[in-house]
Amino acid sequence: MMTFSELLQKRRAIRDFEDKAVPLPLVEEILRDATLAPSASNNQPCRFSVVQCRKAMKNLSDESKACLLKDHDDKKIALNPQYVNLLQDENFNVFYNAPCLIFVAGPKSAGSLDVDAALAAAYIMFAAAARGLGTCWVALGANIRDPQLRGELGFSENLRIVAPIILGYPKAIPAAPERHAPEILRVIAEAR
Amino acid sequence: MMTFSELLQKRRAIRDFEDKAVPLPLVEEILRDATLAPSASNNQPCRFSVVQCRKAMKNLSDESKACLLKDHDDKKIALNPQYVNLLQDENFNVFYNAPCLIFVAGPKSAGSLDVDAALAAAYIMFAAAARGLGTCWVALGANIRDPQLRGELGFSENLRIVAPIILGYPKAIPAAPERHAPEILRVIAEAR
Repeated sequence: MMTFSELLQKRRAIRDFEDKAVPLPLVEEILRDATLAPSASNNQPCRFSVVQCRKAMKNLSDESKACLLKDHDDKKIALNPQYVNLLQDENFNVFYNAPCLIFVAGPKSAGSLDVDAALAAAYIMFAAAARGLGTCWVALGANIRDPQLRGELGFSENLRIVAPIILGYPKAIPAAPERHAPEILRVIAEAR
Repeated sequence: MMTFSELLQKRRAIRDFEDKAVPLPLVEEILRDATLAPSASNNQPCRFSVVQCRKAMKNLSDESKACLLKDHDDKKIALNPQYVNLLQDENFNVFYNAPCLIFVAGPKSAGSLDVDAALAAAYIMFAAAARGLGTCWVALGANIRDPQLRGELGFSENLRIVAPIILGYPKAIPAAPERHAPEILRVIAEAR
């Protein structure tokens, strides 16, 4: 049991994990918590896929890296130069060799899929932190296009991956990088 | 102090509030918690505006309703018929006469604004629930285009509103509407 303030401190981006599997029933518990996230008109559009095999994860990392670099070369996206170097490094695994990876996806047709999936992702990250686990949303891992790999994840053409989240037991919980104070542009106060 | 499971139960969509103001320092505390939300490349793109005046809130509700109905008439969006009736009802306030309203917005140029703002919104909703307050993300309240109203909120042309969140002391905390079990499409298990 921890206070909300402790939970906020524990929910940090974790990329360095103990070499210890996350039991599937624990992943299922976390995903059950995630179903309590609000969604537009209570549509509950999110679908999940869980990867616990490091070899499969490596293949998914390679695919996402290749797709991102191709889009950059084709000028469909403009990657930051530091990301280009990182993605070109064969030894860089976008999923940081985590013991577990959860994909949050949903129908392309759902207009509010991005925000609904992000809310579910926040629930996953808090639910994991509350159980002593660490997570990191790895946006570089979302570009999976190869039909065979998508098939293995159960993601048909009409589903879009929004949030790949790595999960495991953290080696350490780093302090939060500095945040600026909330930028409150206006306060329209109650008329007296 | 509450367990995470209690926090999940308390974080419900609340639309019926006590007639009791939310002190600004409490709103500021909640927004400070929201700055701890993760964001793509730690960009922290979110900006906030707080409305505590019910007259201003009514004007914002009227503006958003009118803009949505215009877009529907112009066939830019296709509203569900039940929403059309609701939006045409003069007495319907999209913000449910809440004592407080927080807008989460950010630069249109930020590619991941939707998900970054949704993560901040999740933090706001949990931070409020942890303090005995209720919230509801009111998507129907996001369509504020009138330059004067936008100016009063401090939202220049280059900012986009993602999440209007009403805030107050709940009259009651309803049970969660039914959720389906998490749809886990595949589990790719560790090779033995």
